[in-house]
Amino acid sequence: MALSRRFLILAEGSFGPLSSKTANACIRYVPDEVAAVLDSRTAGRKAQDVLGFGGNIPVVDSFAAGMIHLPNALLIGIAPAGGQFPDAWRSIVCDALRAGLDVWSGLHTMLGDDPEFAALAAVSGATIRDLRRMPSGLEVASGRVRDVEATVVLTVGTDCNIGKMTAQLQVQSSVRQLGHRVNFAATGQTGILVEGRGIAVDAVIADFIAGAAESLTIEAAAEADIVLVEGQGSIIHPAYSGVTLGLMHGALPHAMVLCAQPSRTSIHRNPWVSIPSLSEMIRLYEAAMEPLRPSPVIAIALNTFDLDDREARLAVERVRSETGLPTTDPVRYEPLVIAEAIAAFHVERVSERNVLSPPAMIG
Amino acid sequence: MALSRRFLILAEGSFGPLSSKTANACIRYVPDEVAAVLDSRTAGRKAQDVLGFGGNIPVVDSFAAGMIHLPNALLIGIAPAGGQFPDAWRSIVCDALRAGLDVWSGLHTMLGDDPEFAALAAVSGATIRDLRRMPSGLEVASGRVRDVEATVVLTVGTDCNIGKMTAQLQVQSSVRQLGHRVNFAATGQTGILVEGRGIAVDAVIADFIAGAAESLTIEAAAEADIVLVEGQGSIIHPAYSGVTLGLMHGALPHAMVLCAQPSRTSIHRNPWVSIPSLSEMIRLYEAAMEPLRPSPVIAIALNTFDLDDREARLAVERVRSETGLPTTDPVRYEPLVIAEAIAAFHVERVSERNVLSPPAMIG
Repeated sequence: MALSRRFLILAEGSFGPLSSKTANACIRYVPDEVAAVLDSRTAGRKAQDVLGFGGNIPVVDSFAAGMIHLPNALLIGIAPAGGQFPDAWRSIVCDALRAGLDVWSGLHTMLGDDPEFAALAAVSGATIRDLRRMPSGLEVASGRVRDVEATVVLTVGTDCNIGKMTAQLQVQSSVRQLGHRVNFAATGQTGILVEGRGIAVDAVIADFIAGAAESLTIEAAAEADIVLVEGQGSIIHPAYSGVTLGLMHGALPHAMVLCAQPSRTSIHRNPWVSIPSLSEMIRLYEAAMEPLRPSPVIAIALNTFDLDDREARLAVERVRSETGLPTTDPVRYEPLVIAEAIAAFHVERVSERNVLSPPAMIG
Repeated sequence: MALSRRFLILAEGSFGPLSSKTANACIRYVPDEVAAVLDSRTAGRKAQDVLGFGGNIPVVDSFAAGMIHLPNALLIGIAPAGGQFPDAWRSIVCDALRAGLDVWSGLHTMLGDDPEFAALAAVSGATIRDLRRMPSGLEVASGRVRDVEATVVLTVGTDCNIGKMTAQLQVQSSVRQLGHRVNFAATGQTGILVEGRGIAVDAVIADFIAGAAESLTIEAAAEADIVLVEGQGSIIHPAYSGVTLGLMHGALPHAMVLCAQPSRTSIHRNPWVSIPSLSEMIRLYEAAMEPLRPSPVIAIALNTFDLDDREARLAVERVRSETGLPTTDPVRYEPLVIAEAIAAFHVERVSERNVLSPPAMIG
């Protein structure tokens, strides 16, 4: 990871808890690398005031005002549906490239392929990092991920944009504190931004979704006992379910953690799709995995950001009671119960494997 | 469908039952659109003699000899491993473009991006049709396909490469004979070649699988009462399940036809994935559709090509008995029972819809 990054985050007109996903993840997970946020609508406030986290990171109203905070990179801070570049931002990106700032983008539009941007970067020596660029040399999935010894855990969701990556990152620290070597396999532009590596599986050619997931999982497993694979979309999402299932069948998780937002009753931007009960969602996910590798849902991560504390606690209790599974909001509360469920699953799996195939030599 | 196409099929050195897949599909499904095959090795024979089907379509030994049969398009008739363009064919493609013939290709190499080909096409006014090119302007799926009035039927399979497209094309003629306006929505390169339009959904960026399927279905529904959508992969395929589910949720079929090969017990090239019973496959497909649009499997299309006649009839009987659904091998036998199941489903759906929302004006 480039520790020397100092981002000016471009979120013009969009900085907020739900509308600037990439910006928010960057602020939450690598706040030390954020110089300022550019959004004229919320300018003058601090990230903490806008998002509820982020401390004193300032929000500024112009590129020039942002430069006062000495950024060395511009991060495109939104992830709109379809991932197109908002043309109103062109002049800001041009200003950044002229000033020699690297540009990081998780959009589907490859900014590095834009002739104007490419020319400006060539002149100033800036680098354009398109996080969603499909790597070359991808293969279709073959099931070779079955040889991985690490325990693979995938987050899955009732919907997209529900906190799967956030839950995973919170849980990762907690699993590590329990004494396990754990790796995070980033599958989306934001996870890649935070982790410094990964493949945006929603941006590869469709035939290679599972192959990309397989390759990522194998790579992350090389130095870990437990691999947490970043989930994407939802198996019931009308636009992104293909990415979700391809990721499931490519990563072949041994277990899954289901993420849900208690207040959400229908799919984001698709009110015509009602979200079924969590028991039904668990049944759907487990049934979809069963023919390839039985993979139980072993914990529930709730996103209760829009509930007051009493409502949040009630929601956690209700879900724990409905599903019989360890449940918490791993951002609002301690992620430990989820980490413990993962660690316990891992320990049991390892001991079962050792019984089934004892090591050839002992001592 | 572009009824005016007359293909000269380029299969130089490769025309044969196993070595010219694209040529053979074209000859099998749209023989009236094939003027001649160019292959100096088998020149002088008829397609029937080389393939065992294709009637009197002549094989010629040169581009000039092919032109005598008045083609208006050149089809690249092979799908070699890697999908690259054989450079020995360059002069023939140039000749064709100079003569104003359109060029159709299902290769991975985009012929339209070749500067020499593009320049010749620009001069002569010929069109280069790269069947695998991802169309520009694709959008993520939004559910607008729900406004379609036509009955949408998707083929799904226990595996890939099991005869979904072939079954669909056989059934299409049969549904038409029953008096319905029916359209085929092609989702793979061969289907696109046969139909003259479509999108290879396995070749789009992963986030757009469902959007491509939605767009295809809406287009096909504009002039039809029944749309048959070409299925891809399988919901249990370890490499391609993402394409399958994205296609399902993008096309939002009202009903599905399940394709299976009785002799196949595990996934093609993935023997570690056993194919569940057909009842279980039906349950999986229906469960995956349920949250978006309940969509029953209404018929079974078997591919019995590798069974003798007695085994084939027993297989059909056994599956009919196991599933309780109309079952046949629509290539080996009459596809009528599947067509009738689709037509009956359509008629019932229309009558239910008319009861629910009667027309504002009658007469």
